[in-house]
Amino acid sequence: MVIGAGNLATNLAIAFNERGINISQVFSRTFENANVLAKKVGAEAISNFDLIKKGNFLYIISLTDDALLQAVSQLIFNEGIVVHTSGSVSINVLKRVAKNHGVFYPLQTFSKEYQVDFFNIPIGIESSDNETKEYLFQLAGILSGDVIEMTSEQRRNVHLAAVFACNFSNLMYSIAENILRKNNLPFEILHTLIQETASKAVRQSPAEIQTGPARRNDKVVIDKHLEMLQSDPESKEIYRLLSDAIHRRYFS
Amino acid sequence: MVIGAGNLATNLAIAFNERGINISQVFSRTFENANVLAKKVGAEAISNFDLIKKGNFLYIISLTDDALLQAVSQLIFNEGIVVHTSGSVSINVLKRVAKNHGVFYPLQTFSKEYQVDFFNIPIGIESSDNETKEYLFQLAGILSGDVIEMTSEQRRNVHLAAVFACNFSNLMYSIAENILRKNNLPFEILHTLIQETASKAVRQSPAEIQTGPARRNDKVVIDKHLEMLQSDPESKEIYRLLSDAIHRRYFS
Repeated sequence: MVIGAGNLATNLAIAFNERGINISQVFSRTFENANVLAKKVGAEAISNFDLIKKGNFLYIISLTDDALLQAVSQLIFNEGIVVHTSGSVSINVLKRVAKNHGVFYPLQTFSKEYQVDFFNIPIGIESSDNETKEYLFQLAGILSGDVIEMTSEQRRNVHLAAVFACNFSNLMYSIAENILRKNNLPFEILHTLIQETASKAVRQSPAEIQTGPARRNDKVVIDKHLEMLQSDPESKEIYRLLSDAIHRRYFS
Repeated sequence: MVIGAGNLATNLAIAFNERGINISQVFSRTFENANVLAKKVGAEAISNFDLIKKGNFLYIISLTDDALLQAVSQLIFNEGIVVHTSGSVSINVLKRVAKNHGVFYPLQTFSKEYQVDFFNIPIGIESSDNETKEYLFQLAGILSGDVIEMTSEQRRNVHLAAVFACNFSNLMYSIAENILRKNNLPFEILHTLIQETASKAVRQSPAEIQTGPARRNDKVVIDKHLEMLQSDPESKEIYRLLSDAIHRRYFS
């Protein structure tokens, strides 16, 4: 069963269901949210921990970290394997929840609206014991060709790195989109650039392919850009801080 | 002929040469740099403006903005079309350089080591007159399927947006790479995530697909991440500023 009905829970439940792994129940504190996902995977929706049926082989807890920490203080399972999917929370929070426990951490950005293909997504596995480890590797292998053992310490560093590489780079796209929209220019004009930048970083190394005014130490352009951002102090501050960071990397 | 031997000049000269457009000379203030590119495209290398041969149909000035502004104060052509390739510099700096002038602005990140395919790269064109415009559209059309007319004002906004979407997102990849390296984790683990984030932003819209701790208002994770960045004040400051920016976008 799946505890949670957010972006990751949704993508995971659908992917497992598509591969023939039955999801018995979906829990969410908000019944309606549970119900939306439950319908998609032919499961029962519940919004009360007391309604969790015994006898599941696997319990996947996929919640925000706050909610996860609350949930683990309320749940105890006498059978089956319990995993959480959080990048930042230690495996140890599950110790009192179930004897056999682990972490099942797919490294990707998920949204309910778009079902990802898990095949190329790395899944980091951590486990309380060898038997659980073997099971989780098999389970992850059904979805992904890239299953890795990862300690809690490694996972939280991977998660931190992913916030920069994914969440913050997406914010950069967003700021770019705003600048274009304010000037009646279509975001499409940046599509090729965005994809090529990502492809290049992956093909070579981001440190090697850094370009732009700060990398060239082109102060004329930097000053002009800061002036253009006058009316948007937050983006201006971001521009200044990131340009300084690039400059320091290559000129000091 | 091409004035400049940097990343963009190199990619442009090679692409034109491959499509049968003859490059007669390559200028760079550093003869060795001019020579490296000149050899690749069968041109003469020069490092002195006085050696520029008359009678070219097209002069492409592809320099940093500082160098461009210096160059245009020293150059005068009585024939042919003169273009610069800068995102931020107005077309007007070319007024005294040649009667027929324009801007030829390919929107991409270039490096000498990797020759890009121009076909999907938008090329922004601005021109002093209709005849020049027609010529520049034809010329750009030889390289790219996406040629657009763009005023100086539009171009500098596109350029500013591109700094965020490309240069700054690449810095985010770089910081992620550093975090992983410090923890003996391979950057490859982020490859799929980086490419999927870029693809999603292009398929949908960056504002719609924003995820991560700040987007979820997951303060537990944010505080943990800031603590992990204790030893790297610059990345910590970037994390804080960007998380605040995301938070403000979705929770105020």
